[in-house]
Amino acid sequence: MKLLLTLGYVGTNYCGYQVQPGKPTIQKALNDAAKELFGFDCDIVGCSRTDSGVHAKVFCATVSKRGEEGLPASLDEKKAPLAFSAHLPNDIAVYDAKWVEDEFHARYDVKEKEYLYRICNRPVHDPFEEGRAFHVPTPITDGDLARMNEAAAYLIGEHDFSAFRAVGSKVTDPHRTVYSASVKRDGNMILFSVSANGFLYHMVRIMAGTLLEVASGKRNPGSVKALLDDPLSGSAGMTAPAEGLYLIRVTY
Amino acid sequence: MKLLLTLGYVGTNYCGYQVQPGKPTIQKALNDAAKELFGFDCDIVGCSRTDSGVHAKVFCATVSKRGEEGLPASLDEKKAPLAFSAHLPNDIAVYDAKWVEDEFHARYDVKEKEYLYRICNRPVHDPFEEGRAFHVPTPITDGDLARMNEAAAYLIGEHDFSAFRAVGSKVTDPHRTVYSASVKRDGNMILFSVSANGFLYHMVRIMAGTLLEVASGKRNPGSVKALLDDPLSGSAGMTAPAEGLYLIRVTY
Repeated sequence: MKLLLTLGYVGTNYCGYQVQPGKPTIQKALNDAAKELFGFDCDIVGCSRTDSGVHAKVFCATVSKRGEEGLPASLDEKKAPLAFSAHLPNDIAVYDAKWVEDEFHARYDVKEKEYLYRICNRPVHDPFEEGRAFHVPTPITDGDLARMNEAAAYLIGEHDFSAFRAVGSKVTDPHRTVYSASVKRDGNMILFSVSANGFLYHMVRIMAGTLLEVASGKRNPGSVKALLDDPLSGSAGMTAPAEGLYLIRVTY
Repeated sequence: MKLLLTLGYVGTNYCGYQVQPGKPTIQKALNDAAKELFGFDCDIVGCSRTDSGVHAKVFCATVSKRGEEGLPASLDEKKAPLAFSAHLPNDIAVYDAKWVEDEFHARYDVKEKEYLYRICNRPVHDPFEEGRAFHVPTPITDGDLARMNEAAAYLIGEHDFSAFRAVGSKVTDPHRTVYSASVKRDGNMILFSVSANGFLYHMVRIMAGTLLEVASGKRNPGSVKALLDDPLSGSAGMTAPAEGLYLIRVTY
């Protein structure tokens, strides 16, 4: 059996999820915590490779003994969240833990993931949202919001998302199925939510950047449809900064 | 004329509002920003002396030339928020500015202030609330919440709040009028709001600590009434930590 953890983290002080030599990453913090807790090296497999500065309200990762299938440890799954959290920095916390079969794979078995992109829309930045939202000072009107939603609706369905991925991305098949995509206002915040069976590199951030160009009038909502119909017909918008992005749901 | 600023700040990295030699404070940051902006030293008068680590969603302060009544500067009040914010660290921002008469006093003229105390109530701490809420892992039930509100209701009105101030507090008259005091749940957060014509040193934090002792069953709601009727009849609860406290409204 492997231990499946559900955790959350503020990504500001990390160079993303995946281990990189000499750099602070979420995976390294989990590796260190697991070693302290069990007394031996563990393999940590995460549900996603989030970028530097990206946050997770919900992230899943499995723990097994390094080089082995399972985890030969008798840890009560009810006590695991507190036990792990005690060995982690304060900007990471484990909320839940359960035992899963050795065959379970934290990344390949994901059926659906949902991301939230937070835009702080007010003239002066909000100190409480520093590193936690993208500050856009120009007012986004209700009309702009309607056009953002018109554009977001085109994203829903199975499409070739080649136009919405970072240059140099290595994944072969650029097709993904987006289940939901919408934008709403909550006070000074503009919130873009999108769920899919998977995401290409920088896909949500490019979607967010493109919707912001729709809001500012730099492009029309139909340009999103055109990019999905023919990815070579033009280019998508800018890659919105990492600080606004949150992984918020993982479904197996 | 003086310039009245409305600002907000994350108090985590500051030793409170008031200038203290060699320490980072909000007042010092405002002094430094004003000097950069106007080219001369200014007097900054704040609406309140918040403690180290306390936050403000709304805080008011006036700016005048040091040693003089007013501010001989022709700054457009519409442009002042961005101009000030540009000279401030990212954890402080000025949202609004307006010219007021020389006689206006940012502290003495306050008619009402409202504070919010945020309690994060879940078994494991929330990384996004580090330094921004008091983490209480023991579940606070709806019944506990009802008893907290019963206790909070006793605080409303004009009372001698001697039992709810820090030992060594220098203010002579311990009478204050509380206009509203209530507790509500919002997801994992327990929110205590209280407004009054003024507050004694540590008054909101002691109120929050006392309500938490009501929640845990350590004391009954009636003990709050007893402490107001006779401040010497017993002691209030612990002083809840600064990180949960926010100044949220200032009325002149």
